[in-house]
Amino acid sequence: MSEPTLLVLDAEPPPRLGQLTGRVRVEHASAAEPDVFADQLTAADVLLVWDFSSDLVRRAWPGPGSRPRWVHTASAGVDHLLCPELVHSETVVTNARGIFDQPIAEYVAGLVIAMAKNLPETWDLQRRHEWRHRETQRIAGGRGCVVGTGPIGRAIADTLSALGIETALVGRTAREGVHGQDELDGLLAGADWVVCAAPLTDATRGMFDARRFGLMRPSARFVNIARGPLVVEDDLVAAVRGREIAGAALDVFQHEPLPADSPLWDTPGLLVSPHMSGDIHGWRDDLGRQFVQMYELWEAGKPLPNVVDKERGYVPGH
Amino acid sequence: MSEPTLLVLDAEPPPRLGQLTGRVRVEHASAAEPDVFADQLTAADVLLVWDFSSDLVRRAWPGPGSRPRWVHTASAGVDHLLCPELVHSETVVTNARGIFDQPIAEYVAGLVIAMAKNLPETWDLQRRHEWRHRETQRIAGGRGCVVGTGPIGRAIADTLSALGIETALVGRTAREGVHGQDELDGLLAGADWVVCAAPLTDATRGMFDARRFGLMRPSARFVNIARGPLVVEDDLVAAVRGREIAGAALDVFQHEPLPADSPLWDTPGLLVSPHMSGDIHGWRDDLGRQFVQMYELWEAGKPLPNVVDKERGYVPGH
Repeated sequence: MSEPTLLVLDAEPPPRLGQLTGRVRVEHASAAEPDVFADQLTAADVLLVWDFSSDLVRRAWPGPGSRPRWVHTASAGVDHLLCPELVHSETVVTNARGIFDQPIAEYVAGLVIAMAKNLPETWDLQRRHEWRHRETQRIAGGRGCVVGTGPIGRAIADTLSALGIETALVGRTAREGVHGQDELDGLLAGADWVVCAAPLTDATRGMFDARRFGLMRPSARFVNIARGPLVVEDDLVAAVRGREIAGAALDVFQHEPLPADSPLWDTPGLLVSPHMSGDIHGWRDDLGRQFVQMYELWEAGKPLPNVVDKERGYVPGH
Repeated sequence: MSEPTLLVLDAEPPPRLGQLTGRVRVEHASAAEPDVFADQLTAADVLLVWDFSSDLVRRAWPGPGSRPRWVHTASAGVDHLLCPELVHSETVVTNARGIFDQPIAEYVAGLVIAMAKNLPETWDLQRRHEWRHRETQRIAGGRGCVVGTGPIGRAIADTLSALGIETALVGRTAREGVHGQDELDGLLAGADWVVCAAPLTDATRGMFDARRFGLMRPSARFVNIARGPLVVEDDLVAAVRGREIAGAALDVFQHEPLPADSPLWDTPGLLVSPHMSGDIHGWRDDLGRQFVQMYELWEAGKPLPNVVDKERGYVPGH
């Protein structure tokens, strides 16, 4: 039996796959050469989407020829992959569930405290050598609402709870410890902190829009560390500028990198970071190690973890 | 029996003492009129140091005439009050123990995460509309060292622990859950986060100096929310500029307000805030309520809480 072919949709730096040497034939593809990728796709057994910023898979998948039996993406979200042809195929899709949970939860906690304690203004004042005492907000005793019940959303809710914020978790359907979609609007109306950690699917696209920002308290703040298109960006800018909510922090955007002329950069009360909330030192090594471990299971014919429900667009949990 | 006289060393806004109307004669003093204050001091039964930024009590206390039997300061630290004459008098000194613990712990957690996740640089980049992804630091799994075992130090240690930072508490003497002074240097050498929450006394003045910064790891960061003179500021600037440590955040300073020409404002890697870590909305009301409650105990001849050990310079705890 010949070695399986592993196609890597590459990015810099590439994954460390040395441990698989001699057990798999590795081919590299680049988002810069879509036609070559489309050809390579027909001959690959496994596809590793290392360049998770590209939607090339979704564009190249529909087409003639055979397809990988397994696609793994080095990301939590799978929105950049799924097209109807892949959803309805036999191909198994897995994600990097587990790698980003704790780092993102810490990042969100940092944003929450930074907004409560007005740290951005403090450092503006520092730049001007200006000593201006202000009163700030206590976070303990506040209320949080985290939308998204995957491990990232749960880690965020746990971390906010550990800081004394009474935090509700909202999912598609109600179950133990999780509020259903039908309770979302009511929870938004009572929350001091609203965090979006939901997968991007047809059901969630644009869910944070003018109507939902209008439900929130004028003192509420909004954080998105999931995917940009969950938020109607123009509506968010209007809500922050119009003081319908007190502020927001976005790590993800409709278009990434965020264009230099986007109004988001300059909206007072809106904090922008470049899609980095989960990316701690060594994160790529962690992602590479996770893939190698999963590859060894696949090679041995064992069941894979982190299997995406392709119809729903995420890995179902408890 | 005539009403007791309560002298308030005032600040804007003044304390709300309406609940004591008819039970006490309230006189107001100002740090701007030290001679008047010295006179008033001889006729007061109780002194409320509402303007805790002034060291007028320490300057005016030594002198002729009788003195208040009880001095309460609306602050956690009592360094601005204590002079040998007060220490060796019968006068009871109490502080605002309990008001600032949770707010300061949140503030420190925010500074820690902000430094780990490089938020100040992110917001500098935002100002320039510059999208630059960077890798940041995970805080869970790191080590913390909090110096000071009062309720503020303990709240900080609890909060950092809740965020997954293994945090040691260092006090004057070792006891259950507390490391002694003799273990400090070793703990500093292993810490990712060093937080100063100690009272300012003769024993602690200047304790964070070149030698101690030299013991710390190049990746370590230092936070001071206690009192400025605990730190030798020139040594800290040198340690940060010389990359002996990775950064620092100071909320308190040798001279407050920090002079506009201080090098601390412009030291890269050094974050400056204007002595506000514990000051959440409503903090003055909390301080006023706490004093009224304590006054009612004093009026009833009951024992006061938060009594300072004047020799040691802080309220001894467990």
